[in-house]
Amino acid sequence: MGRPVVVLSGGMDSATVLAYTVALYGEADAITANYGQRHVREIESAMKQAERYGCRHDLVDLTSVGALLSGSALTDEVEVPFGHYAEETMKATVVPNRNAILANVAAGVAVAREAPAIILGVHSGDHAIYPDCRPEFVEALAGVLKVANYHPVRVEAPFLHTDKAGILRVGHALGVDYSATWTCYVGGDKACGKCGACQERLEAFGLIGKTDPLAYE
Amino acid sequence: MGRPVVVLSGGMDSATVLAYTVALYGEADAITANYGQRHVREIESAMKQAERYGCRHDLVDLTSVGALLSGSALTDEVEVPFGHYAEETMKATVVPNRNAILANVAAGVAVAREAPAIILGVHSGDHAIYPDCRPEFVEALAGVLKVANYHPVRVEAPFLHTDKAGILRVGHALGVDYSATWTCYVGGDKACGKCGACQERLEAFGLIGKTDPLAYE
Repeated sequence: MGRPVVVLSGGMDSATVLAYTVALYGEADAITANYGQRHVREIESAMKQAERYGCRHDLVDLTSVGALLSGSALTDEVEVPFGHYAEETMKATVVPNRNAILANVAAGVAVAREAPAIILGVHSGDHAIYPDCRPEFVEALAGVLKVANYHPVRVEAPFLHTDKAGILRVGHALGVDYSATWTCYVGGDKACGKCGACQERLEAFGLIGKTDPLAYE
Repeated sequence: MGRPVVVLSGGMDSATVLAYTVALYGEADAITANYGQRHVREIESAMKQAERYGCRHDLVDLTSVGALLSGSALTDEVEVPFGHYAEETMKATVVPNRNAILANVAAGVAVAREAPAIILGVHSGDHAIYPDCRPEFVEALAGVLKVANYHPVRVEAPFLHTDKAGILRVGHALGVDYSATWTCYVGGDKACGKCGACQERLEAFGLIGKTDPLAYE
């Protein structure tokens, strides 16, 4: 029986999911995809998190896929929207079918290793903007991974019904190192503090009364 | 509205699906993945088929994913099983979660292009061995692609309830060039004629009383 496979982006949500999975099950593998996103800093953060928990960590190169999924500010020349997560601006950051692709790659790895589950960091704060973070998506995906292979794979999304503040409360209890997570959509040397992703992150730290250890411009 | 996206492997099934989709809808895009399969000949055949029908054809490089999906004779050093499709031997050719990954990549492309559907070449001859060719898989996948994106994508599998003989009857009616399709699992200069895939193909040609135009050893 293999270890549960965490889809690790290097952001604060998936870093917390990794820590939580290791706490829950004692061990985890991690997988990170490069689909040509602007913030390669996320991938470096993912490597630090996986190393910290002693996880097997695999990087997969999906840049040729990402190149076809045009229309998102995360992979394209489209301008990154600034300001708070408002529907119209943040829709520009939706990568077509991203979570279905990443989850299914992770599931393939889970099948190959006879691992019981894949673990996703989706949460309710993303439900408004990202269809592939919603409960009905997770449920439908679980239906596929019950029947797509001889070895069925469970889909777990422990933070599906909480938000970034809830994730941060769990993460602080588990001692997650948030200085080694990357959220900013711009990808400079320091986080910009202005894009929707930075604002949402800072707001969550504010809600739980903690200071974000990450360096901001 | 984009064109329907055909998952094209270069084998006889997906070549026929491409011809049928072009007949049905007047146009199609094609997408082919290289996941490190032994038979690169399949990819060359896919290029010929797409060119023949004047399709936009994209190749995606999934070799880093394929490298993690070990355990299959199609991507590994595992010996290709000879003889007819018997359950025990042919299970060695199952690539973990392959169709879910390929279909979801194609669906991402379909979303990006606002295409109505992805088209798969799965058929009943594969139901016994490959879980990700069965009706319950196609149905579950369709459920995911209804909810995973703002733009819902239909899943069509026109040959889901027929077999390779049925596919060949349709393909001959449509004038498919089967000399430019590749089925063999071995991947020599000529098809081996002995592996399970070759035997199944030759059997289907026999059933409809036609000669396979492909060169065999």
